[in-house]
Amino acid sequence: MKLVQFWRNGRPALGLQTERGVVDAAAEATRLGVTVPEDMAAAIALPAGELERLLTPLLQDPQCFTGAPLAPVVTGTDRIFCIGLNYRQHAKECGLPIPPAPVLFNKFSNALAAHGDCVKLIPDYKKYDYEAELVSVIGKPARNVSEEDALDYVFGYTCGNDLSTRDLQFARGGQWVLSKTFDGFAPVGPCLVPAGELDPNHLDISSTVNGEVRQSSNTSDMIFPLAQIIADLSHHFTLMPGDLIFTGTPQGVMHGYPADQKSWLKPGDWVEVTIQGIGTLRTTFC
Amino acid sequence: MKLVQFWRNGRPALGLQTERGVVDAAAEATRLGVTVPEDMAAAIALPAGELERLLTPLLQDPQCFTGAPLAPVVTGTDRIFCIGLNYRQHAKECGLPIPPAPVLFNKFSNALAAHGDCVKLIPDYKKYDYEAELVSVIGKPARNVSEEDALDYVFGYTCGNDLSTRDLQFARGGQWVLSKTFDGFAPVGPCLVPAGELDPNHLDISSTVNGEVRQSSNTSDMIFPLAQIIADLSHHFTLMPGDLIFTGTPQGVMHGYPADQKSWLKPGDWVEVTIQGIGTLRTTFC
Repeated sequence: MKLVQFWRNGRPALGLQTERGVVDAAAEATRLGVTVPEDMAAAIALPAGELERLLTPLLQDPQCFTGAPLAPVVTGTDRIFCIGLNYRQHAKECGLPIPPAPVLFNKFSNALAAHGDCVKLIPDYKKYDYEAELVSVIGKPARNVSEEDALDYVFGYTCGNDLSTRDLQFARGGQWVLSKTFDGFAPVGPCLVPAGELDPNHLDISSTVNGEVRQSSNTSDMIFPLAQIIADLSHHFTLMPGDLIFTGTPQGVMHGYPADQKSWLKPGDWVEVTIQGIGTLRTTFC
Repeated sequence: MKLVQFWRNGRPALGLQTERGVVDAAAEATRLGVTVPEDMAAAIALPAGELERLLTPLLQDPQCFTGAPLAPVVTGTDRIFCIGLNYRQHAKECGLPIPPAPVLFNKFSNALAAHGDCVKLIPDYKKYDYEAELVSVIGKPARNVSEEDALDYVFGYTCGNDLSTRDLQFARGGQWVLSKTFDGFAPVGPCLVPAGELDPNHLDISSTVNGEVRQSSNTSDMIFPLAQIIADLSHHFTLMPGDLIFTGTPQGVMHGYPADQKSWLKPGDWVEVTIQGIGTLRTTFC
């Protein structure tokens, strides 16, 4: 099942991505005389299993499709947690040791962008960069959960692009948040796949820039698997439904050599992030 | 005017701190046959000047007081921005150069605590520390505002205590957020003073630990005055109503010498942060 949100009268509405297009869940439910959650936040709030029970009938022979622009798959949260340096080969390309514990930073909601959105690169900076990431969405409050139980707290998965301004990231006391939370710098999508349908530890993950492959790896190269990240964060504070966790990026970023000849993102470029079982998230730049 | 929030049936309600106690704004308004905002978020959403016009009559001869526990002066936001190393004498005590631009980090809403709250120090860490800070609350969306206009976007001011776990702050890739956002690690209060009543650039600010003075300075020692911080942040992303900005701490933290004999906060301690024109924010630890 591939969940999406699309814009209806300025508000996000729940949809289902199918081969025939995006099903307008509310319209299809009305046609069938049933009721479904109006947006992703309402979907996340349902008890486990209930969402699939409600939505499966809508996929039998859907008639109500929408061509409205997609919204980010999750909205309404400022809690976008990100793990840095979480792939072995990426730590190696950065010339950095394997971190002994997860490195946490974050973005805010202004950074969220949908599949297909155009993200503006302001002219003050030059070193704009992509990072393909598996993103998990938390489904219920998690405090002090064990690694064994951690994945039970995940609602679903999507693709993310952790966009950065490298010329700002390592300035300003070395705190990354400002360089990572420009408007639109957290594209997510194209859809959200319920947690039970994927094994987050064994998914091919890749990115392309203008069609050229830049990253190609598998989530099995993560230093801290998702279950360990959730257990660790929940030991320090309470994770909440709708929280997004960007789980780090594999090798292949900061493209180009030597250092002064790297090719950064510029207006007109397009980046695609693809994860096995989810799909391809496309972002263009202007 | 000193605005507060108190807990009513699990929700924050607007109050007015007076010498006779906290006025229950909704109850007093009902008694007078007028209408007032129900909480601080609703107060922030009013046009400039409207709040004072609505609330001033409630202070003439108030009859409706409440003894309910105080809530944080602002709630419902995960956007708690903090500026690091923003006082000249504090940079000096840290042995660090004056930063060329504001250093941004942040906390999340789970860190908010009210005046008088007890904050839990989990036993995994030892180096818990206080930081007295002037906190500003944003009143309207701010994007690319000039330094000259920046203070027009402030709704009000309160005291804050930027609590830290020093033994975690400089681990984990040097990203500060995890060490700063433990539950209750952003006490704010005791009240919120409307922006027009204070000059944020000339306020005495101090802290005590168990009654012993640890910090005593003035906001005039800030490296980046609040107007410059707002202009800078709004150049990078949109500030929103209700956003909190912790503006940095003066010298006198990480108390004790030599390094291995510093006296960190422990259960049973109490810290008070006092700012001229606002009041004293008290936090105890358990």
